[in-house]
Amino acid sequence: MLTFARKLIYGSPLPTAAEVHQRLTRVKALAVFSSDALSSVAYATEEILLVLIVAGPAALKLSWPIALAIAGLLLVVATSYYQTIHGYPSGGGAYIVAYDNLGVWPGLIAASALLIDYVLTVAVSITAGVAAITSALPTLHQLRVQLCVLAIVLIMWANLRGVRESGTLFAIPTYAFILVFVALGVTGLVRLLGGRLAPPSSPTNAIATAGPSGLSLFLLLRAFASGCTALTGIEAISNGIPAFRKPEADNAGKTLLAMAALLTSMFLGITLLARSLQVVPQEHETVVSQIGRQVLGAGLPYLILQLATALILVLAANTSFADFPRLSAILARDRYLPRQLTNLGDRLVFANGIIALAVLASVLVIIFGGQTHRLIPLYAVGVFLSFTLSQAGMVRHWIRERGAGWQWKVTMNGLGAAATAIVLLIIVATKLVHGAWVVILLIPLFVWVFHIIKRHYVSLAQQLSLEGLRPETWAGMASDRWHKVIVLVSGVHRGTVAALRFARSLSRDVTAVVVDVEQRETARVREKWTLWGHGVPLVVLESPYRSTLGPLLQFLEEVDQHEPERSLAVVVLPEFVPAQWWHHLLHNHTARLIKRALVYGREHSDKDRVVIDVPYHLQR
Amino acid sequence: MLTFARKLIYGSPLPTAAEVHQRLTRVKALAVFSSDALSSVAYATEEILLVLIVAGPAALKLSWPIALAIAGLLLVVATSYYQTIHGYPSGGGAYIVAYDNLGVWPGLIAASALLIDYVLTVAVSITAGVAAITSALPTLHQLRVQLCVLAIVLIMWANLRGVRESGTLFAIPTYAFILVFVALGVTGLVRLLGGRLAPPSSPTNAIATAGPSGLSLFLLLRAFASGCTALTGIEAISNGIPAFRKPEADNAGKTLLAMAALLTSMFLGITLLARSLQVVPQEHETVVSQIGRQVLGAGLPYLILQLATALILVLAANTSFADFPRLSAILARDRYLPRQLTNLGDRLVFANGIIALAVLASVLVIIFGGQTHRLIPLYAVGVFLSFTLSQAGMVRHWIRERGAGWQWKVTMNGLGAAATAIVLLIIVATKLVHGAWVVILLIPLFVWVFHIIKRHYVSLAQQLSLEGLRPETWAGMASDRWHKVIVLVSGVHRGTVAALRFARSLSRDVTAVVVDVEQRETARVREKWTLWGHGVPLVVLESPYRSTLGPLLQFLEEVDQHEPERSLAVVVLPEFVPAQWWHHLLHNHTARLIKRALVYGREHSDKDRVVIDVPYHLQR
Repeated sequence: MLTFARKLIYGSPLPTAAEVHQRLTRVKALAVFSSDALSSVAYATEEILLVLIVAGPAALKLSWPIALAIAGLLLVVATSYYQTIHGYPSGGGAYIVAYDNLGVWPGLIAASALLIDYVLTVAVSITAGVAAITSALPTLHQLRVQLCVLAIVLIMWANLRGVRESGTLFAIPTYAFILVFVALGVTGLVRLLGGRLAPPSSPTNAIATAGPSGLSLFLLLRAFASGCTALTGIEAISNGIPAFRKPEADNAGKTLLAMAALLTSMFLGITLLARSLQVVPQEHETVVSQIGRQVLGAGLPYLILQLATALILVLAANTSFADFPRLSAILARDRYLPRQLTNLGDRLVFANGIIALAVLASVLVIIFGGQTHRLIPLYAVGVFLSFTLSQAGMVRHWIRERGAGWQWKVTMNGLGAAATAIVLLIIVATKLVHGAWVVILLIPLFVWVFHIIKRHYVSLAQQLSLEGLRPETWAGMASDRWHKVIVLVSGVHRGTVAALRFARSLSRDVTAVVVDVEQRETARVREKWTLWGHGVPLVVLESPYRSTLGPLLQFLEEVDQHEPERSLAVVVLPEFVPAQWWHHLLHNHTARLIKRALVYGREHSDKDRVVIDVPYHLQR
Repeated sequence: MLTFARKLIYGSPLPTAAEVHQRLTRVKALAVFSSDALSSVAYATEEILLVLIVAGPAALKLSWPIALAIAGLLLVVATSYYQTIHGYPSGGGAYIVAYDNLGVWPGLIAASALLIDYVLTVAVSITAGVAAITSALPTLHQLRVQLCVLAIVLIMWANLRGVRESGTLFAIPTYAFILVFVALGVTGLVRLLGGRLAPPSSPTNAIATAGPSGLSLFLLLRAFASGCTALTGIEAISNGIPAFRKPEADNAGKTLLAMAALLTSMFLGITLLARSLQVVPQEHETVVSQIGRQVLGAGLPYLILQLATALILVLAANTSFADFPRLSAILARDRYLPRQLTNLGDRLVFANGIIALAVLASVLVIIFGGQTHRLIPLYAVGVFLSFTLSQAGMVRHWIRERGAGWQWKVTMNGLGAAATAIVLLIIVATKLVHGAWVVILLIPLFVWVFHIIKRHYVSLAQQLSLEGLRPETWAGMASDRWHKVIVLVSGVHRGTVAALRFARSLSRDVTAVVVDVEQRETARVREKWTLWGHGVPLVVLESPYRSTLGPLLQFLEEVDQHEPERSLAVVVLPEFVPAQWWHHLLHNHTARLIKRALVYGREHSDKDRVVIDVPYHLQR
């Protein structure tokens, strides 16, 4: 039945041999790797406006210079990553680049920043995607948390079944999104220039003529920091170079430049439209939706815009469902995370990592009430920390390598590292109290956990190692040919007799033990033993406190003391196995408890106990 | 650490020998056994009024004739039980009497009715007790559900530590309750007759002069049925006869009559006062509290009244905490309930039954929002069903015995059975839609569960029985001197080597098996095996779907087919045991999963598998 349920959820298992690597053309690769970056166009402008509105509607005009600054930063970072692609043609994620060039600790810091950011990418993208839907269908606004969690569960499920990064599947929504946004931008600008589109003169807009009030440098920097979420996902291509067709690095580099160009123009276009239409951020409708309705009306084109936005945001979340489990598996392979994360599931995906990501993202969405702008202050800290570490690692890489034109490369990556470091400081300073502190506490915590886990695995390997031991002496036969075998008896029945028979086949030194919990039962065992004991001595253990385990452990210790030359004692437990699952409810699980205490409870004795389970299967 | 927590909760364990039976004087016995019955005075009158108020305040006057009818019924039932005491001097609970005289099914019906009623006694008593508190302290009204659950948990805890039915402990609140109520009655009547106490002329009471509206026979019967809760607990003495001093039956009989007299006069007194003072039931204050405030004022005497009421209700609940686990244990001894219920805990109490009762009562309290009057329709069905079955059983008993004056005894018990049967019908008819249907569905469900459980234990005993088997042939040594021993290897380390050494000490026919989940690991095992294998053959099992269990089971089946003459295969599992609990989180629990599948999963094979756990303890 369990197997059936597994199949229903996961689909038929795939053999290991089915793992293949598909190579992508530049067109498909752009679709696969850019959904995360491009999708941020859906919310980045809004986040800038949400900060500026604090200083009054007039301050919204400042979104344009801020957007230009962000576009400049984007250019620097994209150039920087262009270099990384050529420096690490086999795939240069921040963890690998930082680990290789800066050492263990920077590598682990980059890894924990990345893991946190993958979780946030899912939460932010899904909440923004659901916001695109609820903007078009306001009645669903109340259900946004449930819709978010449902979407996460569906994406998890698809990934557990093994949605591969199929170019075709991704290409349709990504290019649809690009097309729709380009169309929106062009239509909007044409109609604006033609004077056929004017900002609605609402009471809010009337205030817009008044000068900005309460505007400060801090607020401007915070708006800039919020807008920097536009850069998230830009590193995706540098992680996925091996998926490109040959020459991989070359194709990846060109794709990166194309993506950066698209992202910059879409982001600037939306910001310009928002400014020209004097869009004010609203609780129940996104900025993009407002622009869409004004430019396209409330008809089909508008609905397509919202749908395409929602779809690309789902794809962006899906990217994390590939990245998070992959990075977890790499960390687990390096022994910084539990090794279960390296297990390939039935469908050749890292199932445990996928489930962990879905759970963490759902928790975030629920805590933050499914609201994108409440999640934003946590976002981007991890991204820019990993940007900085990765670029700094690249600087070190070029200095070490000193290949052709290394000075130029060092300058470019150095510029990238410096720029992202400054932005990181701005983000931390302006968003600290709004939630960034959570991430700043979590990153060292994660690093500490990585360290503890690594220490355990190293110690385990040392303890289990056979290095330097001589097989003849260490693993040779034990001196005690006959083991001391103890059979625990609670009543004389077929199960006990089967266990006794097995014990006698193992050794000539068998002792049966009954713990005197109930006098009548003990008397009955004694009586039957003459007939069924086959000469095996029966020891009755007193149990004034009605415990079975205590007297048994004490008896084993006495045995140890009497025969210190024996290396271990063997305990045989007869266990009858019910035919129906619910029959288990009707029995004391004494055998199971004793087994656990003997195998796992070391405090009782220095010697090892071998526990032998002799099952007796009931038929009905 | 677990041991410490146990001790903190339960106290130090008591040896079995400490189980002693205390004998009670009549005075103390009255305190111990009558709290349940007497405490119903606190709510029975109110339940009558709550039904009558539906027909308008004027109908409240009818409470007096209804109370008189209930007092008559009480007389009949008490006389009936007086006979039971002399017929079953060793303790005649309804289950035993019905089982003995009417057969298995009536016995089980009585048992399930009783179990349900014990749970309801706790729920009703605790909610009524908390109502007594919140009447005096209205600010606590909002917290009543929490207070009820807290009270149940505290009583559970006290019982788990082994509060014995200590006469002295019970005597104080019971006699305080009796004294306070007698004082209340006498003061009230004296002041009423002296004309110094008149009903307050509130708007509600103004209506009281109008004639009753919408009054029907059905409503009168429902009021009667609700008031019959006054009889609950009257059977307690007949269950506890062995606790009395000699001559037990005689003392118990006299105590029963004293209790009946007290109960009747207190119940009638409160009803009379309520009628004379024209008390109208209120949501936030009990009827007894209203009477108390009018008669005694809002001072200390009133507070003592409320406190005494709350205390005796707690004692009444406590009675069920002795009765429910005792009846469960008797049923479990007779194999109608899981045998875990017969386990004496550390403090010589039936701990599992106590916990089960607390959980069930808390669930009821939460479902019914801590309101007594919503629980009442469920109550009394079980009580009167067990009354009827018990009295009917006594009729049969006397007819069978035909001792001195048997005709008189048959008549009395027959009268009791008939009266309680009629009341049962009235209760069912009038309360059916208000909640009694739940109990009417639950009783046969419980009986069915008892039956299923009994059937399992009988079948178990038959399957395990050695009856008719010959020890020499059935339990003689197996023909295969050397067992086929299979060692599961996942890597070659100290744990594996220890397991291999143990396997070689058991048999000459040892095979090591490695499942090829990861090629590199398998290659490493093969390579090391030449050095550490000691000539034991190593079999590599293909695993295209990365499962360890599947290929292992298949291999075992092949072994079975090759060597059908062997009775079983022995599987040795090396298992390293982490030194810290949290280390468990960092490992696949493959060994545990395989163990479970081999021992419990019968579907894979007809042959038994013996599983041997060879632990290797890590030090840090």
